[in-house]
Amino acid sequence: MRQSELFTKTRREAPKGEVSKNAELLVRAGYIHKEMAGVYSFLPLGLRVLNNIAVIIREEMNAIGGQEVFLSGLQNPELWKKTGRWDDSVVDNWFKTKLSDGTELGLGHSHEEPLTALLTEHISSYRDLPKAIYQIQTKFRNELRAKSGLLRGREFMMKDMYSFVRTPEELDSFHERAAEAYKNIFSRAGIGERTFRTFASGGSFSKYSDEFQMLCDAGEDTIYLHRERELAVNREVYTDEVLLDLNLDKHELEEVRAIEVGNIFKLGNRFSEPLELAFTDETGGKKPVLMGCYGLGLSRLMGAVAEALSDEKGLRWPKTLSPFALHLVAIAGEKVKESAEALYGKLSRHGVSVLYDDRDMSAGQKFADADLLGIPYRAIVSQKTLEAGGIELAERAGGVSRMVSEKELFSLS
Amino acid sequence: MRQSELFTKTRREAPKGEVSKNAELLVRAGYIHKEMAGVYSFLPLGLRVLNNIAVIIREEMNAIGGQEVFLSGLQNPELWKKTGRWDDSVVDNWFKTKLSDGTELGLGHSHEEPLTALLTEHISSYRDLPKAIYQIQTKFRNELRAKSGLLRGREFMMKDMYSFVRTPEELDSFHERAAEAYKNIFSRAGIGERTFRTFASGGSFSKYSDEFQMLCDAGEDTIYLHRERELAVNREVYTDEVLLDLNLDKHELEEVRAIEVGNIFKLGNRFSEPLELAFTDETGGKKPVLMGCYGLGLSRLMGAVAEALSDEKGLRWPKTLSPFALHLVAIAGEKVKESAEALYGKLSRHGVSVLYDDRDMSAGQKFADADLLGIPYRAIVSQKTLEAGGIELAERAGGVSRMVSEKELFSLS
Repeated sequence: MRQSELFTKTRREAPKGEVSKNAELLVRAGYIHKEMAGVYSFLPLGLRVLNNIAVIIREEMNAIGGQEVFLSGLQNPELWKKTGRWDDSVVDNWFKTKLSDGTELGLGHSHEEPLTALLTEHISSYRDLPKAIYQIQTKFRNELRAKSGLLRGREFMMKDMYSFVRTPEELDSFHERAAEAYKNIFSRAGIGERTFRTFASGGSFSKYSDEFQMLCDAGEDTIYLHRERELAVNREVYTDEVLLDLNLDKHELEEVRAIEVGNIFKLGNRFSEPLELAFTDETGGKKPVLMGCYGLGLSRLMGAVAEALSDEKGLRWPKTLSPFALHLVAIAGEKVKESAEALYGKLSRHGVSVLYDDRDMSAGQKFADADLLGIPYRAIVSQKTLEAGGIELAERAGGVSRMVSEKELFSLS
Repeated sequence: MRQSELFTKTRREAPKGEVSKNAELLVRAGYIHKEMAGVYSFLPLGLRVLNNIAVIIREEMNAIGGQEVFLSGLQNPELWKKTGRWDDSVVDNWFKTKLSDGTELGLGHSHEEPLTALLTEHISSYRDLPKAIYQIQTKFRNELRAKSGLLRGREFMMKDMYSFVRTPEELDSFHERAAEAYKNIFSRAGIGERTFRTFASGGSFSKYSDEFQMLCDAGEDTIYLHRERELAVNREVYTDEVLLDLNLDKHELEEVRAIEVGNIFKLGNRFSEPLELAFTDETGGKKPVLMGCYGLGLSRLMGAVAEALSDEKGLRWPKTLSPFALHLVAIAGEKVKESAEALYGKLSRHGVSVLYDDRDMSAGQKFADADLLGIPYRAIVSQKTLEAGGIELAERAGGVSRMVSEKELFSLS
């Protein structure tokens, strides 16, 4: 894409009232727009990052047997009353609205109730199980405070998967497969090395749930990390009893701040009982379906990566999330322009996704913008590179730049 | 995909209280689930259709220079007050909600206000124009009646594009390009021959708007169609004066029922004036940006196709929208099963998207389900076809089936 045609512009100053680093950078770079506290719109570059995250998530969810759906945002109170989660005193972050005739509706902050109810029409026998169903969809949560940019939104993009199984063993086994899939996702998203499976409070059906916590000083959570064993304990369950249970020695743990980028839960029969999702087993007996849930915020992950991998100059995307594989920057001059145009055409024909800075602007401004946008590779065409008979390839992450041939750039696709 | 693994099941009976044919068929076939009147969730097969529609729309929007964004559902009242569209007496289908502190918010039924406001940060000069920006996103409309299935939803998936231009001539020219893109979309979606550009009321900035109306007895609209000239007039502007203006002879028009599957509007400065989206022209003068909007409901299009192309046995998808290219049906027997499994493997390796009915069920039940699901091509493996040394290929649309080779099926990808 030609940068001259992209409708968004970068800005030098932080937006007024934005206190979180991720939102500040993403707004300045033109990836997102703040509609109000905790509510952001995604502009072309931001949507491309979000879509890249979605591709990774879909592949990993499909690989463990997930079937994708898209449930409604509007929620029928009757289902939530059955599980006792309609009342604002129980779930304190509902957004509620009304039909013209006064009937109250909710906006989905999660989807256990509607999906469980829906499945009563499709699941009745042990032969119909196990199943895993997920969606990538907008969630609405009426957060009291929303000052962390994309890290805690009142409206945000989430992947929520739910498993439906027959036995506690199947539930455990799927839980572990989901945990593996999550590890793959964070690794592919470029934060694998700083993201740790973390024991957190479990609820009524199991002792613990598992969070995936990405180390980051701006995180809301405090965790106690055992680096060698690659696991951690959330402060909320950090007691002597739990440490003993997990065979962890207090003195081997680091206290660190972290951002929760995913969580997986065993729900058991918490929702299937009240919503009557049951199956007939091999002996003809009727049993409640057991469930698990597996959440991952796409926009939060985008914010977490922006928060953790950026530097003072701007964003630094991992290759897998970057809106473009390559940033082609042409430095003034008619001859340079001609050569850059030709290269842009060739790169496009070779399927390299490239943002081409064809704007009429100083080299300094272009490089500052490129640093802010954070595309991992930058190809520079200038008078100097023309004379040298190559293209200068630099990496946003740093290190020395080097002269390369056109051919070498084609491999970035 | 193996049909035995698909979590949805078909049902013989129409769901209780569903009066629209499109929703009845789509619910029975397991494409969608009704959450409440006018609110549907999309199940795996339905989501695949929706995604196919999205691919076509994206390609056509990108081809006319559209840049994709994803705006928030939650709406800031301040912007809508500036254009006078916040009050329920002006816009009667708002869903409204509240923050914890009591601040009122809206749910987006359209996005002129937030996008226009957003662009004031990115557009200031004639050099920044023209631009076309679109999104595919959930809309919320508090409809009084919602009995038409996917044709009129309280929550639905919509593509809305907005153009931002400098002059009335640019606005006209983009309007025509958008109309061409819409023609392409409906043609690619399999309803080109029954969909007509239709003059409708225009509002303050232009005499007419253009609707795209698909002929269908279940439609809410009455239009007057000139078949040869491939255009129509909506009843709402069907006056002698308008007919004269459009050079149409009453006696050459047919009165027909139709479903509006798209509409394109010239907005002029209706939103740019109150929201102060202006640009500096070549002479240094300040002018309001002119705007157009181009709407197309994806879920409504899905419902319209289901409504119009189905028959008494079930759905009939055009190839471009079908959830799978091929429905492979194996008819009982160990040998048949073996052969069908091998064929399924080969088809998958050749990139043919195939739904494989590997269920333990009678031929009659399988064929009835296949008719209901409506995948355009059906490959049947049975004792008979094994003996004949080929595969029976039938078309959902009807006509005689014929014996084909494996190779011929590979070309369906």
